[in-house]
Amino acid sequence: MTSSGATFTSNGTYCSMDGKVGRRAPLSIDTINRRVIESEYAVRGEIVQLAQKIARDLEEGKGNYPFDKVVWCNIGNPQILGQKPITYFRQVLALCECPQLLSHPNIRDLFPEDVINRAQLLIKAIPGGLGAYSDSAGALIIRQLVAAAISARDGFPSDPENIYMTDGASPAVHYMMDLLLREPSDGIMVPIPQYPLYSATLTLYGGTLVPYHLNEAAGWALDVANLRERLSEARAKGLCVRALVVINPGNPTGQCLSYDNIRDILAFCRDEQLVLIADEVYQANIYVEDKEFFSFKRVACSEGLLSAVPLVSLHSISKGFIGECGRRGGYMEVTGFPEAVKDQILKLASINLCPNLSGQICCALMMNPPQEGEASYPLYCEERNAILGSLKRRAELLVGALNRLQGVSCNAAEGALYAFPRVTLPDAAVRAAQQLGKQPDWLYCRELLAATGIVVVPGSGFGQADGTYHFRTTFLPSEEDIGHVVEALGKFHAAFLAKYGGVIAAAPAGAVEVEENGTH
Amino acid sequence: MTSSGATFTSNGTYCSMDGKVGRRAPLSIDTINRRVIESEYAVRGEIVQLAQKIARDLEEGKGNYPFDKVVWCNIGNPQILGQKPITYFRQVLALCECPQLLSHPNIRDLFPEDVINRAQLLIKAIPGGLGAYSDSAGALIIRQLVAAAISARDGFPSDPENIYMTDGASPAVHYMMDLLLREPSDGIMVPIPQYPLYSATLTLYGGTLVPYHLNEAAGWALDVANLRERLSEARAKGLCVRALVVINPGNPTGQCLSYDNIRDILAFCRDEQLVLIADEVYQANIYVEDKEFFSFKRVACSEGLLSAVPLVSLHSISKGFIGECGRRGGYMEVTGFPEAVKDQILKLASINLCPNLSGQICCALMMNPPQEGEASYPLYCEERNAILGSLKRRAELLVGALNRLQGVSCNAAEGALYAFPRVTLPDAAVRAAQQLGKQPDWLYCRELLAATGIVVVPGSGFGQADGTYHFRTTFLPSEEDIGHVVEALGKFHAAFLAKYGGVIAAAPAGAVEVEENGTH
Repeated sequence: MTSSGATFTSNGTYCSMDGKVGRRAPLSIDTINRRVIESEYAVRGEIVQLAQKIARDLEEGKGNYPFDKVVWCNIGNPQILGQKPITYFRQVLALCECPQLLSHPNIRDLFPEDVINRAQLLIKAIPGGLGAYSDSAGALIIRQLVAAAISARDGFPSDPENIYMTDGASPAVHYMMDLLLREPSDGIMVPIPQYPLYSATLTLYGGTLVPYHLNEAAGWALDVANLRERLSEARAKGLCVRALVVINPGNPTGQCLSYDNIRDILAFCRDEQLVLIADEVYQANIYVEDKEFFSFKRVACSEGLLSAVPLVSLHSISKGFIGECGRRGGYMEVTGFPEAVKDQILKLASINLCPNLSGQICCALMMNPPQEGEASYPLYCEERNAILGSLKRRAELLVGALNRLQGVSCNAAEGALYAFPRVTLPDAAVRAAQQLGKQPDWLYCRELLAATGIVVVPGSGFGQADGTYHFRTTFLPSEEDIGHVVEALGKFHAAFLAKYGGVIAAAPAGAVEVEENGTH
Repeated sequence: MTSSGATFTSNGTYCSMDGKVGRRAPLSIDTINRRVIESEYAVRGEIVQLAQKIARDLEEGKGNYPFDKVVWCNIGNPQILGQKPITYFRQVLALCECPQLLSHPNIRDLFPEDVINRAQLLIKAIPGGLGAYSDSAGALIIRQLVAAAISARDGFPSDPENIYMTDGASPAVHYMMDLLLREPSDGIMVPIPQYPLYSATLTLYGGTLVPYHLNEAAGWALDVANLRERLSEARAKGLCVRALVVINPGNPTGQCLSYDNIRDILAFCRDEQLVLIADEVYQANIYVEDKEFFSFKRVACSEGLLSAVPLVSLHSISKGFIGECGRRGGYMEVTGFPEAVKDQILKLASINLCPNLSGQICCALMMNPPQEGEASYPLYCEERNAILGSLKRRAELLVGALNRLQGVSCNAAEGALYAFPRVTLPDAAVRAAQQLGKQPDWLYCRELLAATGIVVVPGSGFGQADGTYHFRTTFLPSEEDIGHVVEALGKFHAAFLAKYGGVIAAAPAGAVEVEENGTH
């Protein structure tokens, strides 16, 4: 009862005493959009929030933890772990920020010739510079530079009118979900395991996740027969499947798709009239000799499928070897879409005015790095090769070490920035998690954090086959640090098994060897 | 009929011949989310798209236009019209981009001492620098700096835990709409005229716009009695009203609310249990001597209403005198919200990972500019005063000139960046527009563009009283250009009246005087 004698019902309906119904819903957790509450984003979920609290405690000298720093392996955020930015990008950006530096008499002492030229070109070509809204799809010069680089990458033309610059790849996924999802019976096919941006936005925009399963036993292979099966099942349930998401190289799974596999996926989308959302943000991160990145666009062009399949290719400056996460830059290339639908994408982009210009510029630079003969070329190559070489060593070191842990198996990380090991958990641990109302892999990650300060993400946040448990960890800690991570992980794992009664005598606790080539 | 003998119904349902229904919806304008199609965003709408085409033609020497450039008065985007960035902000940003400059021996020749100190502080305090994802709410140091500045502005404490950094103010509006709108019967009160971001996001997130009317005859006054009336009407229709949007200073209307008015609006929200969304992005743009900006937060604190009203205050680096639109930076301060709801805002932010760091830094600098005694202070003041002084002169010049046009009346622009004149259109023009299926003010703006290259936005994009017609124009063209804009507008207006039979002999065509103090 309120002071006026009216009553509130649980859903916020207000019923006045005279029988008239006026509706009120005072702000509370019970009166906000359920879809927001139901959406989950594991890579910044509960474990990460706990880790943030611990990090704050450590900074302030509070608490009593058996480690002196938090190691952020929950998300591909290399610069927070000490990776240095690529010099060339930052030099061009500094001049674009502060064009008056260009007229300083000593400017050539501070910046190489090609950096100065590139900055001058961009400043001249971007109307109003970094401080003005650009076209909602991005500044024309930026889209032209990106399209030219895609053309060179694929050997097939790319049109600047098909390029939409974005604040990282995430907004592109939001646009697609908003565009395609009309009602709860609209579904989108998403790999399991998946990157939780897809499940989170599907929930937010009110659609249904239609899972297809990557085959762990076959190196996380994507089987088109499985796609067909899952699609039929979904349709039989009355779902209207609108799109297929493919992540290549995979996240969290790291597999790199073959040309033939991509061709078959394209044909599947053509036959089934699905939009294909190709998340290709890890295209520069491939660590095995016998694999090559093929873009869906390139294969579509080669196979004459370009106009037959509505295709969205996503890319980002956050990943690759440049890892400019905090800048928020990316693009999507949209092909095979009706013009009228492209107009609607542009409108969605316009409602946010434009992507940030510094991210746009960085994206154009990523796609058009210094060329042989330019002053910055040697340093650029040195920095790029050092990062990629080190990532490869760290990937092999981590995966090798994981595979030597008792009850742990991990596919090779062919690409991307993650290992996604499968962990056989003792029954007692599974029961302990159930008593807490949590997933067993959550318990494992929670205890790992408490024991070591290492932050990883439970496999349940990505999806996994029933009864299997995984976690995702980046291999981004520096080469100095990753040996320590591997060692700490091994000790923790043994202790966890001991605690929950899963020790097997043949594999003594803590017996994790560090490969020589991974520690120098 | 398809080749397989199945039929598609208009809504994309697929009926196979054997009577089983599997649903397909091949991508087309008819199968995408209607809410996307129905959303409208006039400041980047059809007139602007036409203008973009004309600008491209002019650049390429194509077409035959009676002007040599497009003048973008459709949107507050000062740097595209030649406004120079504030030097201090850009110097700090350049050093944050490229920290290795700090160790260059000549660095003190290029940058003032306080710029170097500020950049050093930020680089040290932001984990991973500009290239790392920050906390989803923004880097802690940035939120601390913003909160400290709000405390100083208002004389009441601000808590960094209540600050959420955003990529401009627009994402904050998206978050609030997403949070509050559960179903079509959820409504949000929005001023008419309004900034079309509100109507566009209300449509996108599936809520209902509950209009309240600003009183044009009283200088666009906001009357709380009108709020009460409109709220009652909405509730009588069965709507559940969740929030009230107030834009202060007004956009497109420029009015600046008094302390008492703000107090009454807060009390109204308390009594009616509404969230108050205070769009305060023009707080630094006030041009009249007898008005002062009061933040809703300050008044809420003074009046003991802080915990009684869920309040969201929006700010942005795109407006003010700094006009760093392309950088996309802003913040929202959230008070009076349940903690559980704030957690959900943070989750929404985390699904986009984090706002861009360069926008975050610029926002912290805007709120904490150089102080007296620091090396950059004199230049900062000079640049700030020059821009604000010029905006004031341009506002007065434009509004004065508009009021001298036949059939045009325009309230003073007390604040913000726009004039929103009312135009009495001849009956023949109204009929001509109807024949085109367009709003009469659209016709006026379309013909203005064709005749002069000046881009303004029809009042119908903002909402207006029935039977009245307006347009919104910024007063951002430079002082050299604005005399030309005023003259061209006057000539066009007279010609438009003559064409549609609305000429009054006493006011000869083109007789627009340019005030002396506005042209130097």
